[in-house]
Amino acid sequence: MSKIFVFGHKNPDTDTICSAIAYAKLKRLKNFDAQAVRLGEINPETEFALKKFGVEIPEEMHIFEGKDVILVDHTEIKQSADDILKANIIEIIDHHNLGDIYTRHPVFVRIEPIGSTSTIIFKMFRESNLDIDNKTAGLLLSGILSDTVILRSVTCTDEDRKIAKKLADQLNLDLEKYGFELKKAKSDILSKTDRELIKSDLKIFNRINMGIGQVEIVEDIDEKRKKTLLEEMKKIRKEIGCDTLLLMLTNIIKQDTELLVVGKTDLVEKAFKTKVENNRVYLKGVMSRKKQVKPAIEDAALL
Amino acid sequence: MSKIFVFGHKNPDTDTICSAIAYAKLKRLKNFDAQAVRLGEINPETEFALKKFGVEIPEEMHIFEGKDVILVDHTEIKQSADDILKANIIEIIDHHNLGDIYTRHPVFVRIEPIGSTSTIIFKMFRESNLDIDNKTAGLLLSGILSDTVILRSVTCTDEDRKIAKKLADQLNLDLEKYGFELKKAKSDILSKTDRELIKSDLKIFNRINMGIGQVEIVEDIDEKRKKTLLEEMKKIRKEIGCDTLLLMLTNIIKQDTELLVVGKTDLVEKAFKTKVENNRVYLKGVMSRKKQVKPAIEDAALL
Repeated sequence: MSKIFVFGHKNPDTDTICSAIAYAKLKRLKNFDAQAVRLGEINPETEFALKKFGVEIPEEMHIFEGKDVILVDHTEIKQSADDILKANIIEIIDHHNLGDIYTRHPVFVRIEPIGSTSTIIFKMFRESNLDIDNKTAGLLLSGILSDTVILRSVTCTDEDRKIAKKLADQLNLDLEKYGFELKKAKSDILSKTDRELIKSDLKIFNRINMGIGQVEIVEDIDEKRKKTLLEEMKKIRKEIGCDTLLLMLTNIIKQDTELLVVGKTDLVEKAFKTKVENNRVYLKGVMSRKKQVKPAIEDAALL
Repeated sequence: MSKIFVFGHKNPDTDTICSAIAYAKLKRLKNFDAQAVRLGEINPETEFALKKFGVEIPEEMHIFEGKDVILVDHTEIKQSADDILKANIIEIIDHHNLGDIYTRHPVFVRIEPIGSTSTIIFKMFRESNLDIDNKTAGLLLSGILSDTVILRSVTCTDEDRKIAKKLADQLNLDLEKYGFELKKAKSDILSKTDRELIKSDLKIFNRINMGIGQVEIVEDIDEKRKKTLLEEMKKIRKEIGCDTLLLMLTNIIKQDTELLVVGKTDLVEKAFKTKVENNRVYLKGVMSRKKQVKPAIEDAALL
């Protein structure tokens, strides 16, 4: 039996890393030779979570041609390994829209419109009647709390809330307290350079030819920093060759987003029925790229 | 709540029609307003199955723009409704490779590498703790037996066999006997014109720019008929604008396939390591388009 590599998207976030590690564990419990790997640097939030539960950072890996792989937390070609279409994809577990990845052979796919991939992995442990050890419970809880912005995102369902509570109970953790520790670790990202900040959680969408990054903040970013961010975004947009590059500055306390926009603005203006002024759009109540920003733009492009 | 339309692929076969009807029923039991529809004429096998269990033929429908839809038994754009990308796809249930259909919004997807979509629908009834009435049991059994060639295809798994047996027991039916009645009804298709025969189960695959049709037979087709089929295939290939058009003449007793080939032959020759002679290739032990013919050609195109 050949080894199976389990990995999430490029610019990995906590849900991508934690769900990959937890799912590789589940596969090993079912006697498969499975290993979690990652496609890039982990962010400070993920590092905090792994350290908290004593879990090692997965190996970085980039060549998958001819290898058996399981994808978690993404189905877009541009977000996956560069040679993903030459790999043998045997399973896909995700919670986004269905993207442009395809397979040559029949495959196992499970995508659910819920708060995190970690939530689905929890359900798969339960459906297989397998116990969840404390390390794995910590990873899954971190994935859920990170992706649902401590259960506050519009993507968060009752199922995510129930499962997060179960996991927190198992670990004797205060859910809110741990969630804010996680997010505080993530906002450390502001100490990075503009380039690192923009690229840290950047996803590229082929069909709308757009890159959309996101930074979660607990207090507003000053004007001077926004200006240098915009200058850097212009360079990065040209490098990746997209029509438009967006950066969501999402304030998780105020629960809103300021969108920085460089490149073409027509789809953004159509999607949000507003003008882009000074390279910015203010979006009240918007926190989710997956459910609020990207689908609105795709609808604008199509309809 | 708006109505949800459930449908399978163009040139519908028994699994596509029966799984759509059964899944619409399951959704109604969960209080959704769901209706099964079809994208084209049903074949004699499906007609036989529906009549046997007293189920009406679903309505034909082609315009889905802006409507909520659930896709069963396919994920390829060319096999779906012409305006599928303008519909709101809320769920996908399938048992093929993952194709090129994508969604703008988060979605529920369940794809398993097993013998039929009907098998997955059976599992979803069970997981929801819902009883399966005899009409639905008859539909699901027909879908499984049809798509697995009476449990003989390489795509058939132990799960398909177990579930088919359970359904046959519920219905007090002899599984083999009913299976051969079904397949006999299907081979009535030979009474159709060449054009109807070729198009009755034709699937088009964008990425390899190829159409692959299949006819299940219980005795060999005579040479004269093969020649007229080949002439008609040449016309149809030009009409649909594919590089290659294949017709699998699959003998379900001998469990082999004669492949009729028109258009470019290079990928077929590479895939099966043989020459196309007289527009034909003999494939011993091959019965499955999904698992044996199409993946071999995709691998040849890519690797």
